[in-house]
Amino acid sequence: MPVNLPELDPASLFPVAGVELGIASAGVKTPGRRDVLVIKLAEGSRAAGVFTLNKFCAAPVRICRTHLAERGDIRALVVNTGNANAGTGVDGFERAKKSCFALAELLNIAPAQVLPFSTGVILEPLPVDKVIGALPAAITDLKAGNWAEAAKAIMTTDVAPKAASKQVVIGGKTVTITGISKGAGMIHPNMATMLGYVATDAAISQPLLQELVSWTADRSFNSITVDGDTSTNDSYILIATGQAGNAEISDAGSADFAAFRDALLDVAQTLAKAIIRDGEGATKFMTINVEGGKDRDECKTVGYAIGRSPLIKTAFFASDPNLGRILCAIGYSAVADLDVDQLEVWLGDVLVAEKGGRAASYTEEQGQRVMKESEITITVKLGRGSENATVWTCDFSYDYVKINADYRS
Amino acid sequence: MPVNLPELDPASLFPVAGVELGIASAGVKTPGRRDVLVIKLAEGSRAAGVFTLNKFCAAPVRICRTHLAERGDIRALVVNTGNANAGTGVDGFERAKKSCFALAELLNIAPAQVLPFSTGVILEPLPVDKVIGALPAAITDLKAGNWAEAAKAIMTTDVAPKAASKQVVIGGKTVTITGISKGAGMIHPNMATMLGYVATDAAISQPLLQELVSWTADRSFNSITVDGDTSTNDSYILIATGQAGNAEISDAGSADFAAFRDALLDVAQTLAKAIIRDGEGATKFMTINVEGGKDRDECKTVGYAIGRSPLIKTAFFASDPNLGRILCAIGYSAVADLDVDQLEVWLGDVLVAEKGGRAASYTEEQGQRVMKESEITITVKLGRGSENATVWTCDFSYDYVKINADYRS
Repeated sequence: MPVNLPELDPASLFPVAGVELGIASAGVKTPGRRDVLVIKLAEGSRAAGVFTLNKFCAAPVRICRTHLAERGDIRALVVNTGNANAGTGVDGFERAKKSCFALAELLNIAPAQVLPFSTGVILEPLPVDKVIGALPAAITDLKAGNWAEAAKAIMTTDVAPKAASKQVVIGGKTVTITGISKGAGMIHPNMATMLGYVATDAAISQPLLQELVSWTADRSFNSITVDGDTSTNDSYILIATGQAGNAEISDAGSADFAAFRDALLDVAQTLAKAIIRDGEGATKFMTINVEGGKDRDECKTVGYAIGRSPLIKTAFFASDPNLGRILCAIGYSAVADLDVDQLEVWLGDVLVAEKGGRAASYTEEQGQRVMKESEITITVKLGRGSENATVWTCDFSYDYVKINADYRS
Repeated sequence: MPVNLPELDPASLFPVAGVELGIASAGVKTPGRRDVLVIKLAEGSRAAGVFTLNKFCAAPVRICRTHLAERGDIRALVVNTGNANAGTGVDGFERAKKSCFALAELLNIAPAQVLPFSTGVILEPLPVDKVIGALPAAITDLKAGNWAEAAKAIMTTDVAPKAASKQVVIGGKTVTITGISKGAGMIHPNMATMLGYVATDAAISQPLLQELVSWTADRSFNSITVDGDTSTNDSYILIATGQAGNAEISDAGSADFAAFRDALLDVAQTLAKAIIRDGEGATKFMTINVEGGKDRDECKTVGYAIGRSPLIKTAFFASDPNLGRILCAIGYSAVADLDVDQLEVWLGDVLVAEKGGRAASYTEEQGQRVMKESEITITVKLGRGSENATVWTCDFSYDYVKINADYRS
């Protein structure tokens, strides 16, 4: 079961003016499963996205990149689960395009105004006719209050749906930010197997929207790892409908921008952390703070070395303070000139290591006390600069193996 | 149980003239365990080594590097299991030095002629007085025929002892190469948690010995992965006593050099593959051939991305041909300008993927047939050059989690 992930309350999700969501069943992999989601955006909406860096990126990812580059006035998204449409060559590309054409025709928009997404098994042909067949029902189902149902529709190995919502006052107007995400395995940024859709009714300029999708991705979806496997399909889309009535946010130095950015980051981090709380087989939620680096990149490098180590993750599963494994991971992270004698390693509020070795004050009892918790913070102080980064991960249990040995077959 | 690893037959290990091995019990971690090994080398022996690149490398690793740099005339090695003497700061360094001084005094050699090694739990003080207390008994036990006992003495989570031996005729003289290795988890090169000691009675120049330790490491111990965790203590030592009577090998272009190199590589690969066959929880042995790369490094990068992916390793555990995960790993490997449309992916003799997607000829039945085997070869043809590399790995099972959740406590 997910680690401290509150059950999703549909009433907690504020609708976003200009955004409607509709769900239908195409039976892509499982007959009867509500596996197709359409998100319709009002005219005048803007969108920006970041996508997986995997070279075997899925066909829909390639199309999203093209459509976002061609025109910013995206009007609809179509998502299917059960099949990733990745590793499917030219044929997969044609199938993804076909779904865009079909939805465009039904909504009377241009195909390049549609963003397609797929998630599920790689290397199998997408039954696109099934997806297209479900579009009319999804369109009939369109409503602003469907965020919770949409969160359920995009799940794959997820145990729980993931959503977050927040309101903030910008320039005297109440602005809403609501988002959903999915993902539980094949999670390692750039991006993770992860879909994230966040919409706001705020008015914001296209350049700042693009800046914010990257900035918040770096601090949320691109700061998590379950297994170190970067998926073929990761996509994070930020939508702004501009219907809140605020004066358009167009100055990166303004108080409005800062307030909006902070609220958006809060939503994105909640969604990203929900993926870790629901990590395949997870029993513990781990926050890895790396402080005192020369730059943010090296802090992330150290954080990820710890966060993806099977040895550390199995020790945490066992609540065993076998903390030498943390030192080991720091030591093999690709930080070229690291001086281990300058480091401090903390487990919760306990100093574990300093001056290249175990802290004199450390006792096994202190370590065991912290390891018993379900939420554990590891802090590494690099002692060589003033930059920080945080990575979130989960432990590695029998159930991770079970889930991934069973998935697909 | 190890995957197709034949039971070690002590009679299959040829003694190496000039090398004696002695084992004793220090009770470093477990009372009564034969956990200390001394290897004594005849005067005139040469040694060369490669070591972990982990920044938190163990105290003995730092001392080995210094002693090998100071003088090539190494006369003794001392190895303990049960404690890694890593993450132990200045105090750990002093303890490792103390063991060198003690053995040097007993053998009437200089402390800098001793190489120390430790393997076991990280972040705990080495009970060096126990190790030193066991040295006289180990010296009493010294004999040329002790290779199999030595292989047992250096085990930690290993299920089976690992050794290999070979004779080859060089310049009309029979030359012997015999080695032992240990390791089962925290295995990922540069180096793996891995100790490897290979000795020969061949006469060979110091520069060629150094060249060969790196060259063979790259193609054996540095081509394996169990869990992607690079240990703090990995060491691979190559010893040449020069007692075989052959004319010294000093020309890298000679037939003698080539014959010796091939025989040595065979021994080193057998030892490295034995580590994978005995990988923690392993049920399958996987060979990953990456061909057609621009250089060897990029072939290894792709091989390691596949070899360390928990998703691929769990699918192989389940004998499930969920082969899209292989494409995914190739796609996120750090090969900058990879064109996935040029790739071929083979599972055994079955073409799985080409032109960016599933091969038209591929069927699920073909994939399942190969996945049922206990030895599986994955071949990736990059189609962009003429360089190759091979990586060996094992699958990822419930027992990996069990072993690593239980170890230490």
